[in-house]
Amino acid sequence: MDLDLILLGTSASLPTAQRAPAALLVRRGGERLLFDCAEGTQRQLLRSQVGLPELDAIFLTHFHADHILGLPGMLKTFALRGRETTLPIHGPPGLGEMMAQLRRIHGRLSYELDLVELAAGACVPRDGYQLRAFALDHGVSAIGYAIVEDERPGRFDVEAADRLGVPNGPARGALQHGQAVTLDDGTRVHPRDVVGEARPGRTLVIAGDTAPSQAVVAAATGADVLVHEATFAEDERERARETRHSTALDAARVGLAAGVRLLVLTHISGRYFGPELAREARGVFPATVVPRDFDVIEIPFAERGEPRRVKGGAAPLERPRTASDDPSTAAQPGSDAAAGA
Amino acid sequence: MDLDLILLGTSASLPTAQRAPAALLVRRGGERLLFDCAEGTQRQLLRSQVGLPELDAIFLTHFHADHILGLPGMLKTFALRGRETTLPIHGPPGLGEMMAQLRRIHGRLSYELDLVELAAGACVPRDGYQLRAFALDHGVSAIGYAIVEDERPGRFDVEAADRLGVPNGPARGALQHGQAVTLDDGTRVHPRDVVGEARPGRTLVIAGDTAPSQAVVAAATGADVLVHEATFAEDERERARETRHSTALDAARVGLAAGVRLLVLTHISGRYFGPELAREARGVFPATVVPRDFDVIEIPFAERGEPRRVKGGAAPLERPRTASDDPSTAAQPGSDAAAGA
Repeated sequence: MDLDLILLGTSASLPTAQRAPAALLVRRGGERLLFDCAEGTQRQLLRSQVGLPELDAIFLTHFHADHILGLPGMLKTFALRGRETTLPIHGPPGLGEMMAQLRRIHGRLSYELDLVELAAGACVPRDGYQLRAFALDHGVSAIGYAIVEDERPGRFDVEAADRLGVPNGPARGALQHGQAVTLDDGTRVHPRDVVGEARPGRTLVIAGDTAPSQAVVAAATGADVLVHEATFAEDERERARETRHSTALDAARVGLAAGVRLLVLTHISGRYFGPELAREARGVFPATVVPRDFDVIEIPFAERGEPRRVKGGAAPLERPRTASDDPSTAAQPGSDAAAGA
Repeated sequence: MDLDLILLGTSASLPTAQRAPAALLVRRGGERLLFDCAEGTQRQLLRSQVGLPELDAIFLTHFHADHILGLPGMLKTFALRGRETTLPIHGPPGLGEMMAQLRRIHGRLSYELDLVELAAGACVPRDGYQLRAFALDHGVSAIGYAIVEDERPGRFDVEAADRLGVPNGPARGALQHGQAVTLDDGTRVHPRDVVGEARPGRTLVIAGDTAPSQAVVAAATGADVLVHEATFAEDERERARETRHSTALDAARVGLAAGVRLLVLTHISGRYFGPELAREARGVFPATVVPRDFDVIEIPFAERGEPRRVKGGAAPLERPRTASDDPSTAAQPGSDAAAGA
């Protein structure tokens, strides 16, 4: 099953021409999960290779304006598109109150919102994985999220099954699903005889805004990917401490302590381009990337390779010009039979 | 004095990958005036050739979400940048109530907002021009704005002044400023003897969302530029009527009746690319353009040429790559001494 994430906004609170404020989309199989929703997120999605999907759920890390201002417009857009499915929105304590404020702005919707307040330590079981909330250190009500996939069944050992005389068909299926079977000759075959060790699923950890924190290290221990903020470089270490943010070096130390496979730095102050943060972090933890907006982080199962950044890119501002764009040419009826939404 | 406008968002309520929702910036000399402020406007400005300026005033046409959702984030950004100057925000009746809702979201600012509710017919004198509010037909509290420049003094006729024996220096200055002077020989010279007819200033009319309306025709009569919505083409005429929007043909007829020099169509539904709307409008009113986001409309004084569209364009998503982007090269101290905000 595919698992990746798309960085829709990688700036700190003040956006720049190159970086939009915080949002990222996780795609797992057919599921679409949005983490944080800064102003402009719906359009970042439209500009991405994904388009604006019917989200399955939204997860907010905290309620600072630069993480939530895209919600009212996006929720309204879903309504204008006629959404009817309930949309779950998760967040730390205070979610209900914050959404009540936003409701005055977006007004009535065509679908229900299911608001789920999560304390650190809470666990939301979902189909094939769990979402675990963990504490952040940002001075406000805030949680990070770990997506922890269920274990996968071990590999089926065809040679062993042949040797034991397990016939092709339902008997092998039952063994794969953990049930013992009795063969025609009376032999009892147990799943452990033909199925290997269960294999771990993947873990993707999304820490929101936070000073470096042991709780994040604990949540991310052994994770495939840790998305961690790196608002500042070392030149602004003091400011990072005052504002309960992290430097790139802080984040690298968290990644190192947790032993993650890939550290993804985001929430970059407009002071920085990115490469200088990557350099500072890689000195301590080489498996670090500092993506640009629209970059994708692919997370294969461990046996299939390392998580990696794939360069994304936005839709071009202009569609390719065609002859019909030129008003001096005669209009062909139907030649501009329009696109889009 | 330069006068132009930059289309920051040209979509109807649902943004597209190519078009952001409604906002436009008027630049007149050193002044920066924002008309409507959809979600993402601050970043559209950052991506434009202008950057995010310290706005002199904001003007809202109505309070539908797709025209105001960019306000809380932008107001907060100004505060984070340390703005201290009072920011006037104008809008139709209901402005105070709407801003009270937004205030719960953006919180305390470092500067004052001066909320100015304007009824249709209201006139705001400003330095060198007036802002006149006029009625729209959109089924909600809504106004359009006409920027009407003061008359300019007539041309000084140097030959006539020479003939009459007006010496160079203060006497000519006084005549230019409308004061009669008495020459050394006792001749009385009146301004009308040496100064031509006063010349009209420019008029720029920004109609918000509206069905075609006589009030807009009246406000735009003789205007240099009329920015008018064209949410739909003729194929959706019925839907335009139901939603109190205009088709491109409706807008063209308004432009024709008002005799404007240039009609600028915006607020384009995602159904359309633009050129098909331009074709429908130009059948009735050839001086029509359908800009893309970031295009600029330049408005010279009448004697210096026609208003025209200049292609704009956004900042590239990526800055040019440099050697220091490559983490494998050794870091040069200070080589990445950062940009930005």
